[in-house]
Amino acid sequence: MVPRYSRPEMAAIWSPETRFRIWFEIEAAAAEAMAELGTIPKEAAQAIRAKGGARVAAISAADLARIDEIERETRHDVIAFLTWLGEGIGPEARFMHQGMTSSDVLDTCLNLQMVRAADLLIADMDALLAALKRRAEEHRHTPTIGRSHGIHAEPTTFGLKLAGHYAEFFRGRARLVAARAEIATCAISGPVGTFASVDPRVETSVAARLGLRVEPVSSQVIPRDRHAAFFCALAVVASSIERLATEVRHLQRSEVREAEEFFFPGQKGSSAMPHKRNPVLSENLTGLARLVRGYVVPALENVALWHERDISHSSVERVIGPDATVTLDFALMRAAGMMERLTIYPERMRANLESLGGVVHSQKVLLALTQAGMAREDAYRAVQSAAMATWQALGTPGARDFRANLLADGPVSAVLDAAALDAAMDPARDFTHVDTIFARVFAAG
Amino acid sequence: MVPRYSRPEMAAIWSPETRFRIWFEIEAAAAEAMAELGTIPKEAAQAIRAKGGARVAAISAADLARIDEIERETRHDVIAFLTWLGEGIGPEARFMHQGMTSSDVLDTCLNLQMVRAADLLIADMDALLAALKRRAEEHRHTPTIGRSHGIHAEPTTFGLKLAGHYAEFFRGRARLVAARAEIATCAISGPVGTFASVDPRVETSVAARLGLRVEPVSSQVIPRDRHAAFFCALAVVASSIERLATEVRHLQRSEVREAEEFFFPGQKGSSAMPHKRNPVLSENLTGLARLVRGYVVPALENVALWHERDISHSSVERVIGPDATVTLDFALMRAAGMMERLTIYPERMRANLESLGGVVHSQKVLLALTQAGMAREDAYRAVQSAAMATWQALGTPGARDFRANLLADGPVSAVLDAAALDAAMDPARDFTHVDTIFARVFAAG
Amino acid sequence: MVPRYSRPEMAAIWSPETRFRIWFEIEAAAAEAMAELGTIPKEAAQAIRAKGGARVAAISAADLARIDEIERETRHDVIAFLTWLGEGIGPEARFMHQGMTSSDVLDTCLNLQMVRAADLLIADMDALLAALKRRAEEHRHTPTIGRSHGIHAEPTTFGLKLAGHYAEFFRGRARLVAARAEIATCAISGPVGTFASVDPRVETSVAARLGLRVEPVSSQVIPRDRHAAFFCALAVVASSIERLATEVRHLQRSEVREAEEFFFPGQKGSSAMPHKRNPVLSENLTGLARLVRGYVVPALENVALWHERDISHSSVERVIGPDATVTLDFALMRAAGMMERLTIYPERMRANLESLGGVVHSQKVLLALTQAGMAREDAYRAVQSAAMATWQALGTPGARDFRANLLADGPVSAVLDAAALDAAMDPARDFTHVDTIFARVFAAG
Amino acid sequence: MVPRYSRPEMAAIWSPETRFRIWFEIEAAAAEAMAELGTIPKEAAQAIRAKGGARVAAISAADLARIDEIERETRHDVIAFLTWLGEGIGPEARFMHQGMTSSDVLDTCLNLQMVRAADLLIADMDALLAALKRRAEEHRHTPTIGRSHGIHAEPTTFGLKLAGHYAEFFRGRARLVAARAEIATCAISGPVGTFASVDPRVETSVAARLGLRVEPVSSQVIPRDRHAAFFCALAVVASSIERLATEVRHLQRSEVREAEEFFFPGQKGSSAMPHKRNPVLSENLTGLARLVRGYVVPALENVALWHERDISHSSVERVIGPDATVTLDFALMRAAGMMERLTIYPERMRANLESLGGVVHSQKVLLALTQAGMAREDAYRAVQSAAMATWQALGTPGARDFRANLLADGPVSAVLDAAALDAAMDPARDFTHVDTIFARVFAAG
Repeated sequence: MVPRYSRPEMAAIWSPETRFRIWFEIEAAAAEAMAELGTIPKEAAQAIRAKGGARVAAISAADLARIDEIERETRHDVIAFLTWLGEGIGPEARFMHQGMTSSDVLDTCLNLQMVRAADLLIADMDALLAALKRRAEEHRHTPTIGRSHGIHAEPTTFGLKLAGHYAEFFRGRARLVAARAEIATCAISGPVGTFASVDPRVETSVAARLGLRVEPVSSQVIPRDRHAAFFCALAVVASSIERLATEVRHLQRSEVREAEEFFFPGQKGSSAMPHKRNPVLSENLTGLARLVRGYVVPALENVALWHERDISHSSVERVIGPDATVTLDFALMRAAGMMERLTIYPERMRANLESLGGVVHSQKVLLALTQAGMAREDAYRAVQSAAMATWQALGTPGARDFRANLLADGPVSAVLDAAALDAAMDPARDFTHVDTIFARVFAAG
Repeated sequence: MVPRYSRPEMAAIWSPETRFRIWFEIEAAAAEAMAELGTIPKEAAQAIRAKGGARVAAISAADLARIDEIERETRHDVIAFLTWLGEGIGPEARFMHQGMTSSDVLDTCLNLQMVRAADLLIADMDALLAALKRRAEEHRHTPTIGRSHGIHAEPTTFGLKLAGHYAEFFRGRARLVAARAEIATCAISGPVGTFASVDPRVETSVAARLGLRVEPVSSQVIPRDRHAAFFCALAVVASSIERLATEVRHLQRSEVREAEEFFFPGQKGSSAMPHKRNPVLSENLTGLARLVRGYVVPALENVALWHERDISHSSVERVIGPDATVTLDFALMRAAGMMERLTIYPERMRANLESLGGVVHSQKVLLALTQAGMAREDAYRAVQSAAMATWQALGTPGARDFRANLLADGPVSAVLDAAALDAAMDPARDFTHVDTIFARVFAAG
Repeated sequence: MVPRYSRPEMAAIWSPETRFRIWFEIEAAAAEAMAELGTIPKEAAQAIRAKGGARVAAISAADLARIDEIERETRHDVIAFLTWLGEGIGPEARFMHQGMTSSDVLDTCLNLQMVRAADLLIADMDALLAALKRRAEEHRHTPTIGRSHGIHAEPTTFGLKLAGHYAEFFRGRARLVAARAEIATCAISGPVGTFASVDPRVETSVAARLGLRVEPVSSQVIPRDRHAAFFCALAVVASSIERLATEVRHLQRSEVREAEEFFFPGQKGSSAMPHKRNPVLSENLTGLARLVRGYVVPALENVALWHERDISHSSVERVIGPDATVTLDFALMRAAGMMERLTIYPERMRANLESLGGVVHSQKVLLALTQAGMAREDAYRAVQSAAMATWQALGTPGARDFRANLLADGPVSAVLDAAALDAAMDPARDFTHVDTIFARVFAAG
Repeated sequence: MVPRYSRPEMAAIWSPETRFRIWFEIEAAAAEAMAELGTIPKEAAQAIRAKGGARVAAISAADLARIDEIERETRHDVIAFLTWLGEGIGPEARFMHQGMTSSDVLDTCLNLQMVRAADLLIADMDALLAALKRRAEEHRHTPTIGRSHGIHAEPTTFGLKLAGHYAEFFRGRARLVAARAEIATCAISGPVGTFASVDPRVETSVAARLGLRVEPVSSQVIPRDRHAAFFCALAVVASSIERLATEVRHLQRSEVREAEEFFFPGQKGSSAMPHKRNPVLSENLTGLARLVRGYVVPALENVALWHERDISHSSVERVIGPDATVTLDFALMRAAGMMERLTIYPERMRANLESLGGVVHSQKVLLALTQAGMAREDAYRAVQSAAMATWQALGTPGARDFRANLLADGPVSAVLDAAALDAAMDPARDFTHVDTIFARVFAAG
């Protein structure tokens, strides 16, 4: 969790204070449930809630140090916390944690943290979706060249590009919602998950208080396939961010110059070259995507714990729990801001679109020729030949453009005269269905 | 796709013949839709369907060689196929593929293959779930020791162990169903996805015929976040297989011997050591899980294609499309067979459970002591001390067991007499909620 | 191992026939060593060599089927092979494999296959290095714009670009050589590697015959850290291929057009758009790099086998052994061919270099200003301002270029007159050290 | 970089203070080299060294905040630092960084940090190697059962097990040394690496002062294949740690109990179950290995930067640079401590070794039978049959052991009498070559 790439809201979810407060919440809720069931005295539950709540609400750096000190002796984090908490509760503290095991506390807490992190991420996605939607609508009809393989293909609109990214993040949002649901479980089932010394109704009660569902069967730990699926969902979103970032990086390159990240007053692009304005946000997003992707491997390796549990997952999660969510949160908000402020150059888009002498209309000519009766193979060869000639001569003064080359081709002009050719190549045809696609994409949201 | 780890049904989905048949199906369906819209002559669509259908139905090794030969010249796989197909259709062939681009064919085909693969995988999951359910019910009440960290913790039942795996695969199945739905889309949208030369109604029609949904916006290609999510779902299932396999490997180890993979008549465990019976199926499953996990990385890297598409994803998918699904299919069916035939030794389970002199009941004693008024810290220390003494003396003739050590402890026996201690340690308490958990797990399926 | 991405030489290393021939070679060499030590009769070793050698030399599809059939019964691949081999040797066959275990055969064979694969890969690297060197020398002094962040930075030469790639592959070659050395070991140490029933001198003898070194200590298997390091070396080379491929993809994009993959007569770039010439080779290489990278994860997971060995690594290696080496071999040779034939457009390089009105010389002006006494901060601001003004006006008829903007800036022209400015901006200064760098890079090879 | 898994020495390498001090060191050394060449005034270099050195030596939290503040405006980290540094130097500050680009500073600094990190890691390896060697010698002749597939195979010694791990870490150490050498380069080559405005002799001089080699050709950045190879080396070492940790986890499991992590006075194994002593260190190491492995993926993805550089690698390295080295450093020292203090139970090893009724000697009987003339197939069947009978009856009072079962087998006893059988099964034969292997392993170090 590098501060440079952290936002406070997300970082706070993973602070020691938050963790201890959630631990307390679980213990207090469990105690109350046990008191209701008569397993422990009602006064004990009240003392735990009142005195423990006060202690944890006022948790200080000194307290954190004290907990660490106890952990150094006991070598057990939950026991260290309970001991510290108990110091503030008194004798009734012995009724805390009855029949529970530390996994009950740790796993339920981790899931709650992941749920809260997911809520932030979903809100981030909404911000990014809103930015994409606004810019897509703004440029719904801004013509630009579509590129396959980095080569000019056919015209499209800049809005359509953004609509594609919108749809992808919309799917990513749905996957995050599903991953959040998967992880929103609570386990209070005691050693090896048998409820030998804790009533299942305690689990039901704690789950309800925390807004979680009961884990149907926990082998002491909440099974890690849930967490693996969660980190996978993050990694796919991160990869979608990389796709968007890659688009911006391409659009900003010096030869293209169709869009540009906002350049702030006072900003300096290079220590050496004062002329530089670099797409550093989108490059940064590309790197952040790599990080989030990398966390999938250990998350998947965490699934196959031994027997009812081992603790190998724990060190992994202490790192990737915060790091994956903090990084993705930062990346999503950076992406949203980048798209909000992206400077777009429609004139450059038009200039680039027209820079290849019209060859980008080759398909429409090919179709017109086959419709007019030419064999597909022959038509392909004729159009390819005219296009290549145009391409070769690009930049040569007085060179024939694609239309001229086609009209100069005997077999082509035999079936398509100039008017028919112009009709075939009419750029308006490229944009006929833009609204259809927008309706498909934005209907749902 | 190593034959050793392939089942014919899954391998067939990825054969060249299947691929070409699906390509034809897409082209024929598109032609029919265009004919209905009046874009191409009805006779053309009929000729394509009839003559093309016959040609592709009878596709031979010689045809495959012929297609390869054309591809060597054109360096384009779809053109090679269309040329070969056209040779059997005649002049009407020029009405095939009108306004379409090769991605329309390739991507829709890939998705259809992935959908079919998913259907097989879901059926595999059902077989594995059925095996797990049957064995879980069979051993619902078979006592066995639950282990955390590989150390005896508290008793559980073998059925409960299997119920946990069942629940995990049940979730995996739901994720596969979701991944299948994600991937079940069809794109017939032409270059850069604008429908410039193909009517969107063609896409709707082809999608319906193939049992797919329309891709709302395709940038020429169907966006690869869908595929990445699919491969992630496979990898989580593979990791769950590894967890099950790891359990079996542990249970079969010589010191444990609680379960054993079926050993076939004539089978030899080792070329050197005739006494060996090794858990080779579960070890094999562990390796297969690693493979499926490894495919996630390139699948995620495939998402960030350049602009409207590049073709870097293609070589990746030619390999991991078959390899990930074929491997997981094989692994699931091997896992199902392994669980169906697993030899289970309840007596060894009981012997192991009782091998540590009763210390596995330490929690229940701890709780009884705190309930009886002892401070948690003091109770913990006393029980830990009695347990460690028992543990140290294991195997020593005449050594005191846990119960005896506890009764020999003054402060303990002061608050718990022998009868109270026996009540606290009653093993029956460990199994009180087994049926509750079974009801939770198997209610849904 | 997809045929499309396989070359016969590499594929042959991984064929069943090759594997069985190496297995035989190991068994025959071991028998001969044992005969020399007097452990088995000399006649037995001769019979094994002569009759076994004949049998394995003539191995047919029917033999492969027979071996498979035996394996289906014994469920053990080495036993199946030895049984088949023994059928051709007769009673002396019982002296084969004495004191050995199947890992001795399997692991030594795998390492020999990896060594052979490494030899091919190193030869591939040499081909690629030769191509890069030739093109680097050819364009040692061809000016082109250097780009950081995709933005024009300062001039460089195309030869320098290629020299950088050459140096990177030269390092990759050294890593492959090191990885080959790491994997070139032989183990004939029997069960759990103790030489309990096989003399260590047998291992020494077999290693010498196979051109391998003795594995100092094998826990029955050759330790898998060696293999993991090997696959890591492949993955780094693959990533370097991706860097080269990415450069080509960028150079070929329509707005840049500085280089282009060779376009073969008869080649078709798109089924829909006859004008397309796409960088499909470099995009394909990008995908292949992803595949090779993905194999690192399972290779690393293979290291932590249980106790003296488990067999989880085997299924992984059956797949990634061939797949990683076959894919990288194909990719390296494709990269070499692509670079050999790459069409390079020096005029476009020059045109692009000059397209930004001279701002690419901003650093040299900045330095001249600070050398002339201006504070760095002030100089930076003035140069940045002149560059931004130039940039904004690009394409506007009559717009001032960078030089003119600088001269129009009071504080700048106060310290640098036109002559001094021209001296500072002299493009020749960018190429002063090209030969120095070439000498550094190509001195070693 | 989670504090829980960080050691101060390694964490310090990655602190902002260290980074800024190295940046200063690079700038000061470059200025001195330029002064020697006459590019800048000698007084300037002296002022930079003296005033800048004092400023950076006394860097405070307030200074860090000031640098951050400048960065927020300029959005450029190196410029922010240089501005802050320049505030303490005065007008001569304009002679700093002449002809250099920020990559020169950043990349050389990163490499120096990685070199220092490697030095710590190599020292860690030495500590771990020393612990393994000591324990290996201590248990050179302690018999224990060797296990393949988790199943008892043949006897070995505990020292031999450790010798295998020693040899593996010894190789890992050599790979770290190689990776350190790879990364020990310095680049001071200016924008796009052409030395257009900085003399190559400056680079040579700075490299020498920092103990680095000159990067032969840098495309503005030091090529990232070097870094990828470095992180790969870390990941292989981490995987070797996991293998060692897995061994300890297995040895400590309740049914095996052959070794145990040191259990500290006051330590508590479980919040619920006072009897627990868990192998938490080795489980923790397993998780840490997953983390280090996961960092390989982004490191490999960092290689293919665009053109002369993009900055996508930077965010990745800010995280994995510290995280991978800090985690591995912690893991190595934890592993060393764990092995130093590991409690080893030779009696349990012997008890386990003898627990299977002697079947672990099956190979020696098989060999004796074939040596005595029995066909290998027949001998295998007879020995397998006797072993399986023994195995099945384990634990049954009065059951025949392996030896008795063999003697009761007609064909076996026909060729091997009791004396011959006992000679064949003599356990001493298993340990004949232990010293040979130790000599191989520890000869080198």
